[in-house]
Amino acid sequence: MAAEIVNPHSDSDTDSGTPNASHDEPFDPAFALHRGGKMAVQATVPVRDKDDLSLAYTPGVAKVCSAIAEQPELVHDYTWKSQVVAVVTDGTAVLGLGDIGPEASLPVMEGKAILFKQFGGVDAVPIALATTDTDEIVETVVRLAPSFGGVNLEDISAPRCFEIERRLQERLDIPVFHDDQHGTAIVTLAALRNAAKLTDRGLGDLRAVISGAGAAGVAIAKFLLEAGLGDVAVADRKGIVSRDREDLTPVKRELAEITNKAGLSGSLESALAGADVFIGVSGGTVPEAAVASMAPGAFVFAMANPNPEVHPDVAHKYAAVVATGRSDFPNQINNVLAFPGIFAGALQVRASRITEGMKIAAANALADVVGDQLAADYVIPSPFDERVAPAVTAAVAAAARAEGVARR
Amino acid sequence: MAAEIVNPHSDSDTDSGTPNASHDEPFDPAFALHRGGKMAVQATVPVRDKDDLSLAYTPGVAKVCSAIAEQPELVHDYTWKSQVVAVVTDGTAVLGLGDIGPEASLPVMEGKAILFKQFGGVDAVPIALATTDTDEIVETVVRLAPSFGGVNLEDISAPRCFEIERRLQERLDIPVFHDDQHGTAIVTLAALRNAAKLTDRGLGDLRAVISGAGAAGVAIAKFLLEAGLGDVAVADRKGIVSRDREDLTPVKRELAEITNKAGLSGSLESALAGADVFIGVSGGTVPEAAVASMAPGAFVFAMANPNPEVHPDVAHKYAAVVATGRSDFPNQINNVLAFPGIFAGALQVRASRITEGMKIAAANALADVVGDQLAADYVIPSPFDERVAPAVTAAVAAAARAEGVARR
Repeated sequence: MAAEIVNPHSDSDTDSGTPNASHDEPFDPAFALHRGGKMAVQATVPVRDKDDLSLAYTPGVAKVCSAIAEQPELVHDYTWKSQVVAVVTDGTAVLGLGDIGPEASLPVMEGKAILFKQFGGVDAVPIALATTDTDEIVETVVRLAPSFGGVNLEDISAPRCFEIERRLQERLDIPVFHDDQHGTAIVTLAALRNAAKLTDRGLGDLRAVISGAGAAGVAIAKFLLEAGLGDVAVADRKGIVSRDREDLTPVKRELAEITNKAGLSGSLESALAGADVFIGVSGGTVPEAAVASMAPGAFVFAMANPNPEVHPDVAHKYAAVVATGRSDFPNQINNVLAFPGIFAGALQVRASRITEGMKIAAANALADVVGDQLAADYVIPSPFDERVAPAVTAAVAAAARAEGVARR
Repeated sequence: MAAEIVNPHSDSDTDSGTPNASHDEPFDPAFALHRGGKMAVQATVPVRDKDDLSLAYTPGVAKVCSAIAEQPELVHDYTWKSQVVAVVTDGTAVLGLGDIGPEASLPVMEGKAILFKQFGGVDAVPIALATTDTDEIVETVVRLAPSFGGVNLEDISAPRCFEIERRLQERLDIPVFHDDQHGTAIVTLAALRNAAKLTDRGLGDLRAVISGAGAAGVAIAKFLLEAGLGDVAVADRKGIVSRDREDLTPVKRELAEITNKAGLSGSLESALAGADVFIGVSGGTVPEAAVASMAPGAFVFAMANPNPEVHPDVAHKYAAVVATGRSDFPNQINNVLAFPGIFAGALQVRASRITEGMKIAAANALADVVGDQLAADYVIPSPFDERVAPAVTAAVAAAARAEGVARR
């Protein structure tokens, strides 16, 4: 056999047939890191010899199976069900990339899974589905549910994501949580609460304008209103969502009913005049003049990645508090601050669902981590602050008990 | 707060509400071992700081997703897809317990998953489905398939298991393998090949009688005929499956066409008269007189667990080679000898399916591990023989290439 030149990034000498001419693998550390994937399964019990096998597998396992068959709740005690979450996507709304399909979404789902583990101690399994049909997604997840303690919906496009989450939560007795909606809303509320505290205002004093009426925008609007914000208006590509518009989807019609007390209409820019808070979850760019027209002491949360709707340098000219979605600026609004602790807390008490009260508790706990160090460039903790996940976990578990959805 | 008595097996001080009165947990090591489950997920890349996160998650992950969207085959290089198998069940035919449902089957599926890891280095995820409908199982697994490199069907009752496997393999371009059928058949053939070698006979010289026409019995019969056995007859509860019976299911009708060249009918016991091989995969007991009626130098493979159809002490009075399914007797016919290496080999070359040739190659490799040490009490290696999985893996990978189903 002739000598071969071995690709140092290859895990096999037969890898030379892999198509890799059109991407830049050897030169990009992200490709090198991703080779072979980012996760693995491990046994947590020994399987070294015949005796181990007779306990972990046949014949010992049969007694455990029989006990669960008699008392179904025991599945939580004697399997990994209550510590494992399915990270479910259909690949239709992946990062800023959009509808790239299930296989191409897998690196994001694996990333999410390892963040669950790293930050919350929660096991998670990527499940990227080969369907984008709402009914099929719902039925598929219902059928998978016996194996999992929770379902994290991820990167499923609006408006299907709303219906899928609602129907799954109705059908299942385990938590179903669309992180792009609620995770973002929770972290946003935490930052907003601290920004208000810093500037001696109550949430009720604030009028917010949200750019983007997708999963995140809709969820943030509803959640901020629940939390007591004074007013919230949401803009989609055609302008402010208001009752006088006749082009609204059912989800946006509902939004028009509960948001925009001020009765604004027209452009996002015009709505920003005198507003206290800008929340960007849309991409695009907000003109500097519109930012300048906001009320004194405004908050600008420009969360689009990688390009914030308002560059922080511009925002700082007019705003009292500036946050982004980026790790290279202060005040990063990052979902990883919420979802690991939320699931860890829900699983700890075997919650049947994640209630509004549990989400509010998570936001409050997250805000409280900042404590006395509160400052304009520190309204939200770092994702690597080790106090975050335990605080969120404890708050969510306590709220689940208080709300009567805990099973232990 | 009042002091509490803490259960030493509990992972939480709130565990006192768990119903555990009706089973014997504190006194049985199998329950202690199973508490909290037997497996976990782990990250294989660092997520310690902002730089790690920017490679493993946003923004670095986006480049990897885009590359896969452009070149779908790259999903095998840059995710764990090609090293992870779904262990799929509907909980209808679990061990000797039968139809105990998906939750109660989970301890077995977790056991299977950790055996995949321990013996084959293959990651595996338990997927216990909340449906027993053939169409629904097929559709569900097809939708899950983007996330997995292979599908191990497990403990799904006959005859649905045959149709489910066939339809899934038609729909999917990854291996689908019902281990209760083929794993058992492969290990049986390996043992039989060595037993024939030991007694200087060819497979073509042997007439076998199989007790049991479920998943294992049907698969063993077909596989032994493919491998060249002289004749095979299969008995179900009503006796030998033969063309003159009018009560046969479609699967057994097909079996009647290809087995039983001798045209036997009547009872299992009568068919054993003069037979060279008995293979038990049914439970029940074979009378000693029937064993005594077999041909000289017979092989008795009594594989029912925990009670072999013929006790080894009885079998040894009449048979040249005796095998069981139990670890406390010599010659254990254990599927763990096959499935880890079969999937490891198939995944290594990204095989689109597991062909008959790959299964024959696995059986031959497994038989060859015994080598010169072949003896009546050593026709099959121990599950803990470290040569087994590498030998099966290499043979299956080579066969996949030879048969044109390898993608690298």
